Amino acid sequence: MDPAAKKHALRLVPYGLYLMGTRREDGSRSVSLVSWFTQTSFEPPLVVLGVHREGNAFEALKETGVFALSVLGSGQQDVLKAFFKHIDVEDGMVAGHRVEDGEATGCPILPALPASLECKVREVLELGEHATVVAEVVGARVHHAGMAALTHGEADLHYAG
Amino acid sequence: MDPAAKKHALRLVPYGLYLMGTRREDGSRSVSLVSWFTQTSFEPPLVVLGVHREGNAFEALKETGVFALSVLGSGQQDVLKAFFKHIDVEDGMVAGHRVEDGEATGCPILPALPASLECKVREVLELGEHATVVAEVVGARVHHAGMAALTHGEADLHYAG
Repeated sequence: MDPAAKKHALRLVPYGLYLMGTRREDGSRSVSLVSWFTQTSFEPPLVVLGVHREGNAFEALKETGVFALSVLGSGQQDVLKAFFKHIDVEDGMVAGHRVEDGEATGCPILPALPASLECKVREVLELGEHATVVAEVVGARVHHAGMAALTHGEADLHYAG
Repeated sequence: MDPAAKKHALRLVPYGLYLMGTRREDGSRSVSLVSWFTQTSFEPPLVVLGVHREGNAFEALKETGVFALSVLGSGQQDVLKAFFKHIDVEDGMVAGHRVEDGEATGCPILPALPASLECKVREVLELGEHATVVAEVVGARVHHAGMAALTHGEADLHYAG
Protein backbone atom coordinates (compact mmCIF):
# COMPACT_ATOMS: atom_id res chain seq x y z
CA MET A 1 0.00 0.00 0.00
CA ASP A 2 1.18 3.53 -0.84
CA PRO A 3 1.10 5.45 2.50
CA ALA A 4 0.88 8.85 0.78
CA ALA A 5 -2.17 7.71 -1.23
CA LYS A 6 -3.76 6.31 1.94
CA LYS A 7 -3.21 9.64 3.71
CA HIS A 8 -4.58 11.59 0.75
CA ALA A 9 -7.73 9.47 0.43
CA LEU A 10 -8.48 9.46 4.17
CA ARG A 11 -7.96 13.23 4.39
CA LEU A 12 -10.47 13.83 1.59
CA VAL A 13 -13.22 12.62 3.94
CA PRO A 14 -15.13 15.58 5.41
CA TYR A 15 -14.91 15.59 9.22
CA GLY A 16 -16.63 17.66 11.86
CA LEU A 17 -15.38 18.41 15.39
CA TYR A 18 -17.10 17.46 18.62
CA LEU A 19 -16.67 18.07 22.33
CA MET A 20 -17.21 14.78 24.12
CA GLY A 21 -18.46 15.05 27.68
CA THR A 22 -17.87 12.12 30.02
CA ARG A 23 -18.37 11.35 33.70
CA ARG A 24 -16.63 8.95 36.08
CA GLU A 25 -18.12 6.85 38.85
CA ASP A 26 -16.57 9.27 41.38
CA GLY A 27 -18.75 12.06 39.94
CA SER A 28 -15.95 13.92 38.15
CA ARG A 29 -16.67 15.10 34.60
CA SER A 30 -14.43 16.03 31.68
CA VAL A 31 -14.62 17.32 28.13
CA SER A 32 -12.38 16.09 25.27
CA LEU A 33 -12.10 16.74 21.54
CA VAL A 34 -13.27 14.11 19.04
CA SER A 35 -13.05 14.21 15.21
CA TRP A 36 -13.96 10.78 13.93
CA PHE A 37 -17.71 10.39 14.04
CA THR A 38 -20.53 9.09 11.85
CA GLN A 39 -24.10 7.88 12.11
CA THR A 40 -24.39 4.18 11.12
CA SER A 41 -28.10 3.34 11.61
CA PHE A 42 -31.49 5.10 11.74
CA GLU A 43 -33.35 2.49 13.84
CA PRO A 44 -32.06 2.23 16.46
CA PRO A 45 -30.15 5.51 15.97
CA LEU A 46 -26.54 4.38 16.14
CA VAL A 47 -23.34 6.37 15.89
CA VAL A 48 -19.67 5.38 15.80
CA LEU A 49 -16.66 7.32 16.97
CA GLY A 50 -12.93 6.79 17.30
CA VAL A 51 -11.66 7.47 20.83
CA HIS A 52 -8.00 7.32 21.83
CA ARG A 53 -7.49 4.35 24.14
CA GLU A 54 -4.96 6.18 26.31
CA GLY A 55 -7.18 9.15 27.13
CA ASN A 56 -9.36 9.98 30.11
CA ALA A 57 -12.51 10.00 27.93
CA PHE A 58 -12.03 6.35 27.01
CA GLU A 59 -11.59 5.28 30.64
CA ALA A 60 -14.72 7.21 31.58
CA LEU A 61 -16.93 5.79 28.85
CA LYS A 62 -15.86 2.26 29.71
CA GLU A 63 -16.60 2.96 33.40
CA THR A 64 -20.08 4.49 33.06
CA GLY A 65 -21.15 3.38 29.54
CA VAL A 66 -22.42 6.85 28.58
CA PHE A 67 -21.17 10.06 26.97
CA ALA A 68 -22.42 13.28 25.39
CA LEU A 69 -21.24 14.90 22.18
CA SER A 70 -21.65 18.63 21.51
CA VAL A 71 -21.18 19.57 17.83
CA LEU A 72 -18.74 22.48 17.32
CA GLY A 73 -20.16 25.24 15.15
CA SER A 74 -18.77 27.10 12.16
CA GLY A 75 -16.61 29.96 13.48
CA GLN A 76 -15.94 28.30 16.85
CA GLN A 77 -12.22 27.68 16.23
CA ASP A 78 -11.34 29.55 19.43
CA VAL A 79 -13.55 27.19 21.48
CA LEU A 80 -11.84 24.22 19.83
CA LYS A 81 -8.31 25.37 20.67
CA ALA A 82 -8.79 24.95 24.43
CA PHE A 83 -9.59 21.25 24.07
CA PHE A 84 -6.49 19.75 22.46
CA LYS A 85 -6.06 18.15 25.92
CA HIS A 86 -9.08 17.02 27.95
CA ILE A 87 -10.35 19.49 30.57
CA ASP A 88 -12.06 18.65 33.87
CA VAL A 89 -15.36 20.39 34.62
CA GLU A 90 -15.07 22.70 37.64
CA ASP A 91 -18.02 24.61 39.12
CA GLY A 92 -20.09 23.88 36.03
CA MET A 93 -17.51 25.48 33.72
CA VAL A 94 -14.92 24.19 31.28
CA ALA A 95 -12.37 26.53 29.61
CA GLY A 96 -14.68 29.49 30.30
CA HIS A 97 -17.78 27.78 28.86
CA ARG A 98 -20.83 26.79 30.86
CA VAL A 99 -21.71 23.09 30.86
CA GLU A 100 -24.96 21.37 31.76
CA ASP A 101 -25.60 17.76 32.73
CA GLY A 102 -27.43 15.96 29.94
CA GLU A 103 -30.85 14.73 31.08
CA ALA A 104 -30.45 11.21 29.67
CA THR A 105 -26.87 10.45 30.75
CA GLY A 106 -25.67 13.09 33.23
CA CYS A 107 -22.72 13.79 30.92
CA PRO A 108 -21.59 17.38 30.30
CA ILE A 109 -22.94 19.23 27.25
CA LEU A 110 -22.02 22.77 26.13
CA PRO A 111 -25.03 24.99 25.35
CA ALA A 112 -22.72 27.44 23.53
CA LEU A 113 -22.43 24.90 20.71
CA PRO A 114 -25.11 24.39 18.01
CA ALA A 115 -26.46 21.01 19.17
CA SER A 116 -25.69 18.03 21.38
CA LEU A 117 -26.34 14.30 21.50
CA GLU A 118 -26.35 11.92 24.44
CA CYS A 119 -25.30 8.33 23.87
CA LYS A 120 -25.23 4.92 25.51
CA VAL A 121 -22.30 2.66 24.60
CA ARG A 122 -23.31 -0.52 22.73
CA GLU A 123 -19.94 -1.97 21.64
CA VAL A 124 -16.28 -1.11 22.20
CA LEU A 125 -13.78 -2.60 19.74
CA GLU A 126 -10.16 -2.16 20.81
CA LEU A 127 -8.55 -2.89 17.45
CA GLY A 128 -6.22 0.11 17.06
CA GLU A 129 -4.63 2.97 19.03
CA HIS A 130 -8.12 4.54 18.93
CA ALA A 131 -11.02 2.31 19.97
CA THR A 132 -14.06 2.07 17.70
CA VAL A 133 -17.04 2.87 19.92
CA VAL A 134 -20.58 2.05 18.73
CA ALA A 135 -23.31 3.84 20.69
CA GLU A 136 -27.05 4.47 20.63
CA VAL A 137 -28.37 8.05 20.66
CA VAL A 138 -30.66 8.44 23.71
CA GLY A 139 -30.92 12.23 23.93
CA ALA A 140 -30.57 15.29 21.71
CA ARG A 141 -30.88 19.06 22.00
CA VAL A 142 -30.63 21.95 19.57
CA HIS A 143 -28.99 24.97 21.23
CA HIS A 144 -28.56 27.30 18.22
CA ALA A 145 -30.66 26.23 15.24
CA GLY A 146 -29.06 28.52 12.65
CA MET A 147 -25.45 27.41 13.14
CA ALA A 148 -23.64 25.08 10.73
CA ALA A 149 -20.94 22.65 11.87
CA LEU A 150 -17.24 23.43 12.04
CA THR A 151 -15.27 21.20 9.66
CA HIS A 152 -11.63 20.12 9.58
CA GLY A 153 -11.30 22.25 6.45
CA GLU A 154 -12.57 25.45 8.09
CA ALA A 155 -10.47 24.75 11.22
CA ASP A 156 -7.39 23.99 9.07
CA LEU A 157 -7.01 20.73 10.97
CA HIS A 158 -6.13 17.48 9.23
CA TYR A 159 -6.46 14.72 11.79
CA ALA A 160 -6.82 11.71 9.51
CA GLY A 161 -4.69 9.53 7.27
CA MET B 1 -35.81 12.06 23.33
CA ASP B 2 -36.93 14.83 20.97
CA PRO B 3 -36.86 13.26 17.44
CA ALA B 4 -36.60 16.66 15.72
CA ALA B 5 -33.56 17.58 17.84
CA LYS B 6 -31.98 14.18 17.10
CA LYS B 7 -32.51 14.72 13.37
CA HIS B 8 -31.11 18.26 13.54
CA ALA B 9 -27.98 17.22 15.46
CA LEU B 10 -27.26 14.19 13.26
CA ARG B 11 -27.74 16.24 10.07
CA LEU B 12 -25.20 18.82 11.26
CA VAL B 13 -22.47 16.20 10.88
CA PRO B 14 -20.54 16.74 7.63
CA TYR B 15 -20.78 13.68 5.37
CA GLY B 16 -19.05 12.73 2.15
CA LEU B 17 -20.31 10.35 -0.53
CA TYR B 18 -18.62 7.15 -1.67
CA LEU B 19 -19.05 4.53 -4.37
CA MET B 20 -18.55 1.13 -2.75
CA GLY B 21 -17.31 -1.60 -5.06
CA THR B 22 -17.97 -5.21 -4.08
CA ARG B 23 -17.48 -8.63 -5.64
CA ARG B 24 -19.24 -11.96 -5.09
CA GLU B 25 -17.80 -15.45 -5.04
CA ASP B 26 -19.34 -16.04 -8.49
CA GLY B 27 -17.12 -13.26 -9.88
CA SER B 28 -19.90 -10.68 -10.35
CA ARG B 29 -19.15 -7.13 -9.21
CA SER B 30 -21.36 -4.19 -8.23
CA VAL B 31 -21.13 -0.58 -7.18
CA SER B 32 -23.37 1.02 -4.52
CA LEU B 33 -23.63 4.43 -2.85
CA VAL B 34 -22.46 4.89 0.77
CA SER B 35 -22.67 8.04 2.94
CA TRP B 36 -21.79 7.04 6.47
CA PHE B 37 -18.05 6.68 6.73
CA THR B 38 -15.24 7.66 9.09
CA GLN B 39 -11.69 6.69 9.92
CA THR B 40 -11.41 5.31 13.50
CA SER B 41 -7.72 4.39 13.91
CA PHE B 42 -4.33 5.27 12.43
CA GLU B 43 -2.49 2.02 13.32
CA PRO B 44 -3.80 -0.23 11.96
CA PRO B 45 -5.67 2.12 9.59
CA LEU B 46 -9.29 1.34 10.39
CA VAL B 47 -12.47 2.77 8.92
CA VAL B 48 -16.14 2.30 9.75
CA LEU B 49 -19.14 2.51 7.48
CA GLY B 50 -22.88 1.97 7.69
CA VAL B 51 -24.16 -0.47 5.05
CA HIS B 52 -27.84 -1.34 4.57
CA ARG B 53 -28.39 -4.95 5.60
CA GLU B 54 -30.90 -5.60 2.82
CA GLY B 55 -28.65 -4.51 -0.04
CA ASN B 56 -26.50 -6.44 -2.46
CA ALA B 57 -23.34 -4.72 -1.16
CA PHE B 58 -23.85 -6.12 2.33
CA GLU B 59 -24.31 -9.69 1.04
CA ALA B 60 -21.17 -9.33 -1.05
CA LEU B 61 -18.95 -7.98 1.72
CA LYS B 62 -20.06 -10.77 4.05
CA GLU B 63 -19.33 -13.31 1.31
CA THR B 64 -15.84 -12.18 0.29
CA GLY B 65 -14.76 -10.01 3.26
CA VAL B 66 -13.44 -7.19 1.05
CA PHE B 67 -14.66 -3.99 -0.62
CA ALA B 68 -13.36 -0.83 -2.28
CA LEU B 69 -14.51 2.73 -1.70
CA SER B 70 -14.07 5.47 -4.31
CA VAL B 71 -14.51 8.99 -2.90
CA LEU B 72 -16.91 11.15 -4.96
CA GLY B 73 -15.47 14.52 -5.87
CA SER B 74 -16.83 18.05 -5.62
CA GLY B 75 -18.96 18.68 -8.72
CA GLN B 76 -19.66 14.99 -9.39
CA GLN B 77 -23.38 15.14 -8.54
CA ASP B 78 -24.27 13.68 -11.94
CA VAL B 79 -22.10 10.62 -11.24
CA LEU B 80 -23.82 10.23 -7.87
CA LYS B 81 -27.35 10.23 -9.30
CA ALA B 82 -26.88 6.97 -11.20
CA PHE B 83 -26.11 5.06 -7.99
CA PHE B 84 -29.23 5.49 -5.84
CA LYS B 85 -29.67 1.77 -6.57
CA HIS B 86 -26.66 -0.56 -6.85
CA ILE B 87 -25.41 -1.22 -10.39
CA ASP B 88 -23.72 -4.38 -11.65
CA VAL B 89 -20.42 -4.01 -13.48
CA GLU B 90 -20.68 -5.08 -17.14
CA ASP B 91 -17.74 -5.19 -19.54
CA GLY B 92 -15.65 -3.14 -17.10
CA MET B 93 -18.19 -0.31 -17.05
CA VAL B 94 -20.78 0.93 -14.60
CA ALA B 95 -23.31 3.66 -15.51
CA GLY B 96 -20.98 4.84 -18.28
CA HIS B 97 -17.89 4.98 -16.05
CA ARG B 98 -14.85 2.75 -16.41
CA VAL B 99 -14.02 0.55 -13.42
CA GLU B 100 -10.77 -1.21 -12.54
CA ASP B 101 -10.19 -4.14 -10.18
CA GLY B 102 -8.36 -2.96 -7.08
CA GLU B 103 -4.95 -4.64 -6.76
CA ALA B 104 -5.39 -5.58 -3.10
CA THR B 105 -8.97 -6.87 -3.14
CA GLY B 106 -10.16 -7.30 -6.74
CA CYS B 107 -13.10 -5.00 -5.95
CA PRO B 108 -14.17 -2.36 -8.50
CA ILE B 109 -12.80 1.18 -8.17
CA LEU B 110 -13.68 4.19 -10.35
CA PRO B 111 -10.64 6.09 -11.70
CA ALA B 112 -12.93 9.03 -12.60
CA LEU B 113 -13.23 9.81 -8.88
CA PRO B 114 -10.53 11.66 -6.88
CA ALA B 115 -9.24 8.71 -4.81
CA SER B 116 -10.04 5.18 -3.72
CA LEU B 117 -9.43 2.88 -0.78
CA GLU B 118 -9.45 -0.90 -0.59
CA CYS B 119 -10.53 -2.54 2.64
CA LYS B 120 -10.64 -5.89 4.44
CA VAL B 121 -13.59 -6.43 6.77
CA ARG B 122 -12.61 -6.80 10.45
CA GLU B 123 -15.98 -6.77 12.25
CA VAL B 124 -19.63 -6.67 11.20
CA LEU B 125 -22.13 -5.55 13.83
CA GLU B 126 -25.76 -6.11 12.83
CA LEU B 127 -27.36 -3.81 15.40
CA GLY B 128 -29.68 -1.70 13.20
CA GLU B 129 -31.22 -1.59 9.71
CA HIS B 130 -27.72 -0.62 8.53
CA ALA B 131 -24.85 -2.80 9.73
CA THR B 132 -21.80 -1.15 11.27
CA VAL B 133 -18.82 -2.50 9.34
CA VAL B 134 -15.28 -2.06 10.71
CA ALA B 135 -12.54 -2.60 8.14
CA GLU B 136 -8.79 -2.22 7.67
CA VAL B 137 -7.43 -0.16 4.77
CA VAL B 138 -5.16 -2.40 2.67
CA GLY B 139 -4.86 -0.35 -0.51
CA ALA B 140 -5.19 3.25 -1.68
CA ARG B 141 -4.83 5.24 -4.90
CA VAL B 142 -5.05 8.90 -5.79
CA HIS B 143 -6.67 9.38 -9.21
CA HIS B 144 -7.06 13.18 -9.32
CA ALA B 145 -4.96 14.94 -6.70
CA GLY B 146 -6.51 18.40 -7.00
CA MET B 147 -10.15 17.38 -6.43
CA ALA B 148 -11.96 17.97 -3.13
CA ALA B 149 -14.71 15.63 -1.86
CA LEU B 150 -18.40 15.98 -2.62
CA THR B 151 -20.37 16.61 0.59
CA HIS B 152 -24.01 16.07 1.48
CA GLY B 153 -24.30 19.87 1.62
CA GLU B 154 -23.02 20.40 -1.93
CA ALA B 155 -25.14 17.49 -3.22
CA ASP B 156 -28.21 18.83 -1.33
CA LEU B 157 -28.63 15.36 0.15
CA HIS B 158 -29.54 14.85 3.81
CA TYR B 159 -29.26 11.15 4.52
CA ALA B 160 -28.91 11.23 8.31
CA GLY B 161 -31.05 11.76 11.37
